Amino acid sequence: MTQKTNAQWRLRERPTGMVEEKHFERVEEPVGTPGEGEFLVRNLYLAFEPAMRGWLNDVKSYVPPVGLGEVMRASGVGEVIESNNERFPVGSLISGMVGWQQYTIDDGSMGPMGAIRPLPPGSDPVLALGALGGTGMTAYFGMMDIGKPKKGDVVLVSGAAGATGSVAGQIARIQGAAKVVGIAGGQRKCDWLVKEAGFDAAIDYKSDDLKARLRAECPNGVDLFFDNVGGEILDVVLLNMAQGGRIVLCGGISQYNDEELPPGPRNYMQLVIRRCTMQGFILIDHLARAGEALRDLSAWIEEGKLVQAVDVQQGFDNAPKTFLRLFSGANLGKQLLQIAEPTTEA
Amino acid sequence: MTQKTNAQWRLRERPTGMVEEKHFERVEEPVGTPGEGEFLVRNLYLAFEPAMRGWLNDVKSYVPPVGLGEVMRASGVGEVIESNNERFPVGSLISGMVGWQQYTIDDGSMGPMGAIRPLPPGSDPVLALGALGGTGMTAYFGMMDIGKPKKGDVVLVSGAAGATGSVAGQIARIQGAAKVVGIAGGQRKCDWLVKEAGFDAAIDYKSDDLKARLRAECPNGVDLFFDNVGGEILDVVLLNMAQGGRIVLCGGISQYNDEELPPGPRNYMQLVIRRCTMQGFILIDHLARAGEALRDLSAWIEEGKLVQAVDVQQGFDNAPKTFLRLFSGANLGKQLLQIAEPTTEA
Repeated sequence: MTQKTNAQWRLRERPTGMVEEKHFERVEEPVGTPGEGEFLVRNLYLAFEPAMRGWLNDVKSYVPPVGLGEVMRASGVGEVIESNNERFPVGSLISGMVGWQQYTIDDGSMGPMGAIRPLPPGSDPVLALGALGGTGMTAYFGMMDIGKPKKGDVVLVSGAAGATGSVAGQIARIQGAAKVVGIAGGQRKCDWLVKEAGFDAAIDYKSDDLKARLRAECPNGVDLFFDNVGGEILDVVLLNMAQGGRIVLCGGISQYNDEELPPGPRNYMQLVIRRCTMQGFILIDHLARAGEALRDLSAWIEEGKLVQAVDVQQGFDNAPKTFLRLFSGANLGKQLLQIAEPTTEA
Repeated sequence: MTQKTNAQWRLRERPTGMVEEKHFERVEEPVGTPGEGEFLVRNLYLAFEPAMRGWLNDVKSYVPPVGLGEVMRASGVGEVIESNNERFPVGSLISGMVGWQQYTIDDGSMGPMGAIRPLPPGSDPVLALGALGGTGMTAYFGMMDIGKPKKGDVVLVSGAAGATGSVAGQIARIQGAAKVVGIAGGQRKCDWLVKEAGFDAAIDYKSDDLKARLRAECPNGVDLFFDNVGGEILDVVLLNMAQGGRIVLCGGISQYNDEELPPGPRNYMQLVIRRCTMQGFILIDHLARAGEALRDLSAWIEEGKLVQAVDVQQGFDNAPKTFLRLFSGANLGKQLLQIAEPTTEA
């Protein structure tokens, strides 16, 4: 059973600008045998997040960079096919940092990005990696702990049709925001936000006049801005914040592939003039309360208050290509790649 | 008595880059007669703050801009020499927005920058405009309400030898900060910070390697940064913030005279990586609690815990020149201009 081949995508070269397929190398090695306390996972789905681009840079950050020649770090869902660990029985599903590979051996211990954990029987891998995964929990803690939407708030979300932004905006609505506006790229995403995800309005930054639309949709300013994008969008929004407004800095996908750091938000002194707060956060600080997030998010999904969009690509060989979809904006919602069919019924 | 001449400096032209003397016009008009409820003030001291540069721009901000042809807005201390208002008896001292003029007529009502208020008998005009004036109260509320220094914090202040920065740093020390470091321009200011104002260390941004000194003085990062300067200094500090640190945005003197807004803080995404908060504030929101600030600040001065530096220039005709000292960095501490001697003993 362990004579199978494990295909992997490893980091071949560090990108200095836009990440490309050539920066990764496909290699094969024999699948190993799990040792004492270890288990072998056959990976079914890989998940993709913009933050993964940051892990490719050789700089000190909140996690160590992916090393040259190492399997690309990524979360995923898989099924346990061999096990020397009773927490992870054969046939069960797991979720965690499995990497861009077909098989993963792990012992369930804590890594820099959390531990691989068992999923409850019957879990939907797509939900487990999306609204109930890292991006959903990022939206949850970013909104509930940092942004703290209040009844009556006008809330704006950039990257609103992405995995995190779409959940963040819906949480604000659930928490009683007076109006939730999303910024996204393209009519298809904007339609989805308003028709499916219950946003009150959507602004297409690619074809709308962002400044004018923002003023029209939020004439009294934005009370809470959840920013996934940075760059020009952040700069324009700074000019339309309400007095005492809060900006949750979740990410800055617009600049992750820039070779040199671009100029920062030119209008940052609006934070003084408008008495605003801008706060960054990282999910891993909040993982001790993951159970609380999963309980709330699951309930909202069951009650039909929270919907998610997913873009599921197919085939292990397409891992780098699928990653690039995040930066071209091809994906609507959570970007996943299915690399195998489950052999067992969960 | 009202046939005297009132010399004034009025805004002649809006500066587009560095403010210069030519942007102001010296005019004279007869001193008016106070009407019902009004009083006439003979101004003794004018006070200068970097924020005044912002009032010269024709943009929407937290206060209306100074109009073309209007007397330049500025705070000062004067003595009442005629009065139809029993709250302001002849011979008493007042403080408030008197403008760049020798005489001011007012009724003590609230303006966009607060009201002219009576000073307690025996008040020192230099203290009333400095540590007990707008800049001192800005330091107080910026530290106590926004920055909230905790015991053990490593606190950094830019523009540390200025009127606000010097008080802010000392308040952090009084509140139990483990270490207070100031950034200032030139050896004279750095010496004053350490020898007179009780800062633990001072970094001369003009001759020191800011990045290296910062790392040496704050090897575990900065917990609380009180920023009066912005620009390159803010960018370097962002790379040396401690996890969960707070940045109080008080001002950005480095860019007030830029013709176009310079690029913003390139390293702002460090707010995410380091989970930091950056918050702006404006004194006028806190003025309802001015009494509390004045009580604490006065007590600290009496106890010898808080010292202030002042730079007192002489002569009404030097008002524009004195204003420019703020931007060349000539002043150590509060920049004042004495324009008359008191006729009465307070």
